Amino acid sequence: MISIGIDIGGMSIKGAAVNDEGRVYEKFTLPIIPNENQDITINKLIDTVKKYIKENKLENEVVGIGIGIPGSIDSTKGICTYSNNLKWEDLHIVEKFVKELQIQTRITNDANAAALGESFFGAGKKYKDIVMITLGTGVGSGIVIDGKLFEGHNGKGAEIGHTCLDFESDITCTCGRKGCFEVYASATALIRQTKEAMEKDKSSLLWEEAENEKKVNGKVPFNAAKRGDETAINVVNNYAKYLSEGILNVCNVFRPECVVLSGGIANQGDYLLDKVIAYCEKYDYGYPRSPKTEIKIAEIGYDSGIIGAACLFFDK
Amino acid sequence: MISIGIDIGGMSIKGAAVNDEGRVYEKFTLPIIPNENQDITINKLIDTVKKYIKENKLENEVVGIGIGIPGSIDSTKGICTYSNNLKWEDLHIVEKFVKELQIQTRITNDANAAALGESFFGAGKKYKDIVMITLGTGVGSGIVIDGKLFEGHNGKGAEIGHTCLDFESDITCTCGRKGCFEVYASATALIRQTKEAMEKDKSSLLWEEAENEKKVNGKVPFNAAKRGDETAINVVNNYAKYLSEGILNVCNVFRPECVVLSGGIANQGDYLLDKVIAYCEKYDYGYPRSPKTEIKIAEIGYDSGIIGAACLFFDK
Repeated sequence: MISIGIDIGGMSIKGAAVNDEGRVYEKFTLPIIPNENQDITINKLIDTVKKYIKENKLENEVVGIGIGIPGSIDSTKGICTYSNNLKWEDLHIVEKFVKELQIQTRITNDANAAALGESFFGAGKKYKDIVMITLGTGVGSGIVIDGKLFEGHNGKGAEIGHTCLDFESDITCTCGRKGCFEVYASATALIRQTKEAMEKDKSSLLWEEAENEKKVNGKVPFNAAKRGDETAINVVNNYAKYLSEGILNVCNVFRPECVVLSGGIANQGDYLLDKVIAYCEKYDYGYPRSPKTEIKIAEIGYDSGIIGAACLFFDK
Repeated sequence: MISIGIDIGGMSIKGAAVNDEGRVYEKFTLPIIPNENQDITINKLIDTVKKYIKENKLENEVVGIGIGIPGSIDSTKGICTYSNNLKWEDLHIVEKFVKELQIQTRITNDANAAALGESFFGAGKKYKDIVMITLGTGVGSGIVIDGKLFEGHNGKGAEIGHTCLDFESDITCTCGRKGCFEVYASATALIRQTKEAMEKDKSSLLWEEAENEKKVNGKVPFNAAKRGDETAINVVNNYAKYLSEGILNVCNVFRPECVVLSGGIANQGDYLLDKVIAYCEKYDYGYPRSPKTEIKIAEIGYDSGIIGAACLFFDK
């Protein structure tokens, strides 16, 4: 079985045919032109997909087209209600695709698509119930229950990044609330935490590492911590605690079989994972009698958006 | 269609036949004897149900027996893994019922049962997706997605009361974490908050109201606030804020059509509800473009546990 997965990013659109064993065929890409009219962008994408199907002689093969979009999606109606990155609003994507291509089309949020991909062919492939948390500019999340995406009513839930970890916090989130998980556990948050620590400790190796990396990024505190810098170790330990508190909330609400971590920070692998697992084991509600939630690093990487979007047509 | 719903409480067990329109037939009750051997309690219950079915000539009517239990349940295996209230541990309830009565039996946590009941015949009857939050000694929760209970993997999720609202809090929850929703929004929490406010303001009407009620209970701050006492108004406003923060987390994760509030504090009705709705409308992520989550007070009351347990056999 073959479907086409499309991953719409902030800079470009990429897509490919994917089979139900997770094999990704030849890819196509399309640049995102900033401030381009949304209908023009979608029409270009439809033309690209049309050409791709024809050139690859997939007319009788493709069971559907799945699209992951960075924004707020009404998956039931097939509408991108709003995307801040793309400046899209009330864009009826599914309707346009079906009209032009006569192939069934499904859309979801990009974090949901990536989670679905990991649940089929990545770190979550052994499990039916997983939650993926993406540690990037924000904190994205995707929830898979019994092998299917759970997106909340009208596709407007699954925003675990916007659950509050500290309502007394003085850090306001982009969503307007105070102390969201995202303002503690995103890469952006880790960079802020690192800079704050650097200001307080001018002799920290964090300064040297920041210079090596040409700026403060998510690797800097880990690099310095691994060299034994106390200030950096504190930054990393606190970050692991924040991340763990969010994961514990996920465990107590969903008790998934597996939590999968992705995004740049997750590349730190076991160094981060060991701290998170230790914290979660200590504070997990009812832990001795509850099924253990595994915590793992995502495995698919670059193609997860394409694969995940294609999985909107596969059964697990 | 008729099933039997059984509600196991801390003091007594009550049950009744319930039809699929929510009608509750004659009830039976059974006292809980403290520290009684768990197998003896279950055998007594089975005998009571056997007699009830015989006396009411329900042998050919009953499609199943549903049981709500205050504790940690593995609904898949039909086991009460642990109940602190009842001192039950690894009790294979479903197996025993099926063996003795030859009627299919399902069990769930008591908060889940109550939520299912409200979703079928109470405040949530118009909706497929609801979350019920019970404000009692703790904060219980039940999640209904697409008309069915969502209990988390192995029935060990849906513990919204044990999601963290403030990890920097100095209040430790019974679960071991700091700053759980439960330590801010339970009736126990409201009583603690009221007592703290009374200590700081010896002239507050809270003292008078506490005397009227014979002690500080969940009504005291509301009674004093309605009389215009500033200290009490602050207690109530803060409590509404805590509750709202927890509800916003529920909205951002599940985006249910409706959040239903139950338990003693919910009896305050609109006085509490108006504050909560105003707060949630202000801070709800993506609110203008997201489907509105209604917030309502539970409607069923006393029989919700029986009705909800019976609903384990009904389709919505």
